[in-house]
Amino acid sequence: MDKILRIDMGAEGGPQAKETPLGEYAGFGGRAMTSAIVSKEVPPLCHALGAENKLVIAPGMLSGTIAAMSGRISVGCKSPLTGGIKEANAGGQAAQVLARLGYAAIVLEGKPKDDALHKIFINKDGVKIVPDNNLRMLPNYDLIEKMKTEYGDKIACISIGPAGEMKMSAASVACTDMELRPTRHAGRGGVGAVMGSKGVKVIVLDDSGMKMRPPKDPEKFKEANKKFVEGLRQHPVTGQGLPAYGTNVLTNILNEVGGYPTYNFKEGKFESAGKISGETQAELEVKRGGLATHGCHRGCVIQCSGVYHDKDGHYLTKQPEYETVWAHGGNCGIGDLDAIAMLDFLDDNYGLDTIEMGATIGVAMEAGLAKFGDAEAAINMVKEVGKGSYLGRILGNGAAFTAKAFGVERAPVVKGQAMPAYDPRAVQGVGVTYATSPMGADHTAGYAVAQNVLKVGGDVNALKPEGQVELSRNLQIATAAIDSTGMCLFIAFAVLDQPDTFQALLDLLNAFYGLNLTADGVTELGKKVLTMERDFNARAGFTAQHDRLPRFFKTEKFAPHNVTFDVKDEDLDKVFNW
Amino acid sequence: MDKILRIDMGAEGGPQAKETPLGEYAGFGGRAMTSAIVSKEVPPLCHALGAENKLVIAPGMLSGTIAAMSGRISVGCKSPLTGGIKEANAGGQAAQVLARLGYAAIVLEGKPKDDALHKIFINKDGVKIVPDNNLRMLPNYDLIEKMKTEYGDKIACISIGPAGEMKMSAASVACTDMELRPTRHAGRGGVGAVMGSKGVKVIVLDDSGMKMRPPKDPEKFKEANKKFVEGLRQHPVTGQGLPAYGTNVLTNILNEVGGYPTYNFKEGKFESAGKISGETQAELEVKRGGLATHGCHRGCVIQCSGVYHDKDGHYLTKQPEYETVWAHGGNCGIGDLDAIAMLDFLDDNYGLDTIEMGATIGVAMEAGLAKFGDAEAAINMVKEVGKGSYLGRILGNGAAFTAKAFGVERAPVVKGQAMPAYDPRAVQGVGVTYATSPMGADHTAGYAVAQNVLKVGGDVNALKPEGQVELSRNLQIATAAIDSTGMCLFIAFAVLDQPDTFQALLDLLNAFYGLNLTADGVTELGKKVLTMERDFNARAGFTAQHDRLPRFFKTEKFAPHNVTFDVKDEDLDKVFNW
Repeated sequence: MDKILRIDMGAEGGPQAKETPLGEYAGFGGRAMTSAIVSKEVPPLCHALGAENKLVIAPGMLSGTIAAMSGRISVGCKSPLTGGIKEANAGGQAAQVLARLGYAAIVLEGKPKDDALHKIFINKDGVKIVPDNNLRMLPNYDLIEKMKTEYGDKIACISIGPAGEMKMSAASVACTDMELRPTRHAGRGGVGAVMGSKGVKVIVLDDSGMKMRPPKDPEKFKEANKKFVEGLRQHPVTGQGLPAYGTNVLTNILNEVGGYPTYNFKEGKFESAGKISGETQAELEVKRGGLATHGCHRGCVIQCSGVYHDKDGHYLTKQPEYETVWAHGGNCGIGDLDAIAMLDFLDDNYGLDTIEMGATIGVAMEAGLAKFGDAEAAINMVKEVGKGSYLGRILGNGAAFTAKAFGVERAPVVKGQAMPAYDPRAVQGVGVTYATSPMGADHTAGYAVAQNVLKVGGDVNALKPEGQVELSRNLQIATAAIDSTGMCLFIAFAVLDQPDTFQALLDLLNAFYGLNLTADGVTELGKKVLTMERDFNARAGFTAQHDRLPRFFKTEKFAPHNVTFDVKDEDLDKVFNW
Repeated sequence: MDKILRIDMGAEGGPQAKETPLGEYAGFGGRAMTSAIVSKEVPPLCHALGAENKLVIAPGMLSGTIAAMSGRISVGCKSPLTGGIKEANAGGQAAQVLARLGYAAIVLEGKPKDDALHKIFINKDGVKIVPDNNLRMLPNYDLIEKMKTEYGDKIACISIGPAGEMKMSAASVACTDMELRPTRHAGRGGVGAVMGSKGVKVIVLDDSGMKMRPPKDPEKFKEANKKFVEGLRQHPVTGQGLPAYGTNVLTNILNEVGGYPTYNFKEGKFESAGKISGETQAELEVKRGGLATHGCHRGCVIQCSGVYHDKDGHYLTKQPEYETVWAHGGNCGIGDLDAIAMLDFLDDNYGLDTIEMGATIGVAMEAGLAKFGDAEAAINMVKEVGKGSYLGRILGNGAAFTAKAFGVERAPVVKGQAMPAYDPRAVQGVGVTYATSPMGADHTAGYAVAQNVLKVGGDVNALKPEGQVELSRNLQIATAAIDSTGMCLFIAFAVLDQPDTFQALLDLLNAFYGLNLTADGVTELGKKVLTMERDFNARAGFTAQHDRLPRFFKTEKFAPHNVTFDVKDEDLDKVFNW
């Protein structure tokens, strides 16, 4: 990871790859790397689908090492969905393989002169960029089968589906998992559309012949990793809840506290929550011969994922995440796990953000295109997106776009990006994160659900504005740092609760890089990342007025607690005062 | 005009009208009135289609008097197209009739509880608000026929077509002309969508029994009007060019100087310009029994309009304006006046902004939905909008929206609003207006074409950046003032060139209101209006970064002069330094 691979897709005579030294980006990984390059090199007022935008793909600081949980890969660019800076990250195998190939980042630049579609193959011998129009409009699963035939099964792939090719703002970048399935998505903000605009369908990575990245102090590193893993196993969330039921353990919890948005953010309890909960899902998975406990990449010790089989016992999709189950489930009034799993599969296959798509279907249902609860209609809607029909062109550009197309006022978005599975009125801390994150509405940017609802790492009343700004500030800083390490964000449960586990994380970084990083150093890194991101956004025209929730969250009371979002504007403006 | 009519469409128990005194809005008219009310009363971050937005309809300061040319009516709101403040104005009879009914403004507030559609009838006896769902989805021409049957032919109507009902961002508000046809549109910025969101289909005005508004000094007023009319008749543009050929006299002129954008702003000359020029159009109109010289409202002495008949000699539409002929003609590669006239009719009938629709079709053609030059395809596209099909929902929301739906980078818009018929690279002064006007791209906001091309009111080289900022500043100030008087903007040609005619305009205002307004006073009014508008936009989140042209105008050279837009960003930021 001592070099950057830059591929100019618009070079005269066809795409050209070159390696450049890290230079000023040395020491960065993951989100710090993508946000540094985008903030420095992309003109903030450029068109997100134009030659001036860049797509940056970066493994984390610890990716490619033996450190547990270090398999996150960051994808950054100017977002076609929000118009601001974007970092979306994913699990799967790509981070580890890319890191072992020695690249701290791949940067896709320029724009092809023609409309040819390309595959990029990278192994120990170098980089091959091949035009291949036979890949056009292939769904991700078919594409990966084709890549296996061409390149064998020792590969990891980063790809787009038809949605990315059609440059839709809900298009994701898919990464393959341990089974070489395209199930791990950098979903948010339309990063797939930017990859599509660069004329790149798939990046195939093969690290055969490459070694695990060596730490500066191998003994200390090994020791730190052991303590880190122990900490994760011992915490109830990372050691029990997530392995047993996955992220979907949250359905019952959020529904219980009345913070589960249903029917396009109308009310906080879903009568069919029990039918789609993590508990029900895990039981069904096991019964049908799937898996309720499974990792998305080698080195994962939390194992929050699973494998979902259909009624006949055949693979349908990976275990849908809580946010996906909510987006296509409660938010659309759909209480049917098989329908939700099918929607998850379709989203993955076409290359779509499940959160954006679920929120979009909710808006379309509010517009009257289908009745809430009509699973077949929801499935057909996603199929329209895959086809690129006119309706699909509307839906594939997300919830805000769909609301505008049909004149719907209630679009649950911030900076154009759909809100996830926690209502900001009943979980006010996450509302602060939605409003102020440079990424647009994003629960992962500062997961105050932990302190508001789960009571992990602190206890702040979810229904009151008090303390939420400070909470979100601290979480956004910590998250920006963790997103840079390549570590799965779920380590935060243990790291926030257990000082020893946090120290083990610091020790991992210090032993690997020969540093003396303290907690303050991590905070500084997080602040640095957020500052670069907010600076880009300011130059793109973002102001305090963009750090606001849609007004209906202030005026419509949310049952059962009958609360509105009560954090004052002037307090939202203090989130980044540090 | 000593009161404001406020209609709360969301009142408990159904819509409620009440009259309020002018209060702080005393002395305002037209754009000054709409922008003052919107800026003061509408929360800048509200949803444009929500209850908090207000639609303000205001005749000008001199409307309803015997003053020539005083028939403009302003329609203002927060724009669903730009997200900023909007004033769009129209000719026709509505301004005069509303002014004589005594209202300085109608303000539509709130949002109906149900989705009922209403008609509002106003005469000397008061205001009636009647739900009438039989009007649903009626095109403007059919609607007006129905209103004539119900209310007689001594009325003037302000209405929306299906586009406004569907809350499309390209929807206009139509005003009837002297023949009681819905041909005069407050077109820009989606004001029709806001009227639709208020559940109001049509406002029928009947001034029977009302009198011409009396001036404070009738003699002076009459004398000033005489001089004013003389000045208009004596100027070559208002006395000859516009009466003979209408605004479409500009096709040959702009094409000749290479500033006529064709094929979605690709190049500056159109090979079929001669086929669609004002000269050709006037000849055809006369030959078919239409009119080449006609006014849009009583009291017009310029008579820049006309009546366009089809091949069989039947009325098809009013004489299409230059911007309409360009938008549906050269910009789409269409050199066929009959097709353009049909498109003009369809736009008027569905209630759509012709500029936005032409730019939208140009973008759709660039996206490959049809070939440039395919008139039948263009007509079908507008029909899709009228039907509200999924394609229509895309196109009806304008050029920026359509570009996003189809992943097209080259969207000729500023603040989301499509550019009109003058390329900003070859007419750099109007480029400054496009970039900086609080309205989004709008030629009427500061018509530097006069000095850049026509050499009226000054002479500034169209192809160079020098002098454009000062020019646009002065024009934007003057225009904001003229838009407040109710005067047709075309008086500016004579007023800018002839000091006597400018003095006559001042004398009209002074004699009517008993004022001592000087040129400085007019400038102050213009600055005041712009300041209110920019203040609203700033509170809505607009920054200097929004006062920019799309980047392709800086990077793509424009034939035949091979120029880019060269006014520097830092100079654009000086437009409002006064």
